[in-house]
Amino acid sequence: MKQSLTIIKVGGNIIDNDVKLKQLLTTFANIQGSKILVHGGGKLATQMANDMQIPQQMIDGRRITDEPTLKIVTMVYAGWINKNIVATLNALKNPAIGITGADGYSILAHKRIHPQIDYGFVGDIDQVNTTFFSQLLLQNQTIVVAPITQDKNGQLLNTNADTIAQEIAKALSSIFDVSLIYSFEKKGVLRDVHDENSVINMLDSSTYQSLKNENLIFAGMIPKLDNAFAAIAAGVKRVIIGDGTSLEALIEGTAGTTIA
Amino acid sequence: MKQSLTIIKVGGNIIDNDVKLKQLLTTFANIQGSKILVHGGGKLATQMANDMQIPQQMIDGRRITDEPTLKIVTMVYAGWINKNIVATLNALKNPAIGITGADGYSILAHKRIHPQIDYGFVGDIDQVNTTFFSQLLLQNQTIVVAPITQDKNGQLLNTNADTIAQEIAKALSSIFDVSLIYSFEKKGVLRDVHDENSVINMLDSSTYQSLKNENLIFAGMIPKLDNAFAAIAAGVKRVIIGDGTSLEALIEGTAGTTIA
Repeated sequence: MKQSLTIIKVGGNIIDNDVKLKQLLTTFANIQGSKILVHGGGKLATQMANDMQIPQQMIDGRRITDEPTLKIVTMVYAGWINKNIVATLNALKNPAIGITGADGYSILAHKRIHPQIDYGFVGDIDQVNTTFFSQLLLQNQTIVVAPITQDKNGQLLNTNADTIAQEIAKALSSIFDVSLIYSFEKKGVLRDVHDENSVINMLDSSTYQSLKNENLIFAGMIPKLDNAFAAIAAGVKRVIIGDGTSLEALIEGTAGTTIA
Repeated sequence: MKQSLTIIKVGGNIIDNDVKLKQLLTTFANIQGSKILVHGGGKLATQMANDMQIPQQMIDGRRITDEPTLKIVTMVYAGWINKNIVATLNALKNPAIGITGADGYSILAHKRIHPQIDYGFVGDIDQVNTTFFSQLLLQNQTIVVAPITQDKNGQLLNTNADTIAQEIAKALSSIFDVSLIYSFEKKGVLRDVHDENSVINMLDSSTYQSLKNENLIFAGMIPKLDNAFAAIAAGVKRVIIGDGTSLEALIEGTAGTTIA
């Protein structure tokens, strides 16, 4: 039997809130088995860009990563946020190591190629170094991943944290029984987008297809859910989507949406 | 016989200069055996504090680390500088992982206690986690250390890079044959502070004592040399002091000052 591995992706709504973050880390520290936490950046990077008067260019809701912006996100994500999470987990007696995709050459990426838009220093993932991750996990280190990768020429790249969590989950599913948790601002996948209490507790592929055919899935959720089912198809044991402030209930399956 | 371990501390004169840094890393990547690089911060932190209009307070040449300053040094040292060095080493086919003293709970420290001066979030080292360092080294990872540590409550602390290099060297000398290299702006320990070519090639304890008694050692070098001899006394095999732009010659002993 494979060992269990819990991978959680935590977004801005928790990262930006010291109280919620501390509470999540306290619950997270108590989870048994191997663990990886992937964090996003929250509002701190935008705030810093404003403080330093570096204009931020958005195209279709995506941040263009020019050189000064790459510097800011690397500093904020890999420096301030990552090291504070690590120090907090250690103090909670949960030994943790913070990395980016550059460390241990753990996630190799390339600069995004797009026919029309130059996203700047944005990375698309080529390969996850499973040996590096599993060695650290087997040494009982919890791994905290900041969403920065590198290419083969040593160029750092800003990389989507959801994608990083998913690629790590897929790569490690050959070695571990992987549960992948996406913490976001909603309680789960909703039957009715206007009703926070209409969470779909369990979602399998055929139910998802019929709900999608009936237009009962909120459009904004479709890419997230397609990715979740792709992860399951690639060997991830279950994907849970929900509000990270109820982490324990998400893992127990009494809150959020479990996809299996 | 113990395996060899080379620990190099690189300061601002190289960190601030992209060309010199790339050259140093290229030479460093070719060194055989286990390796640790400890870096300082250079001028970038001061520059960022200026950009963000955060006043910097210095007492006796030492930076007082208030909360905004801690944030800046963590971002610059652990984020930007550390990850760029790591990415460059990986691209040079030298697998590297970047850490602070928080990661893996590798260096435990406490906030400096001083009867008169409040240095702010400055750390003095209590303990080095030798197991963590040696496991990574035995996995053929080169370790790149940023000068940030944490205390047992999860507080990050700004910590002197020279001291970090020395404490790691001392702690690992029970497992490895450690060579500790301090790269700084001079060619080595000078007989005549006004003559860059008066480098003392080899310095043993008794010669050092007599030179010190005759006031032939530049006062500014005395703390560095006292520390170097303390490291030797604690089991470090040799300490080399010199200009990191001649790293190969320093290791061969044809440049710089070797203390043994």
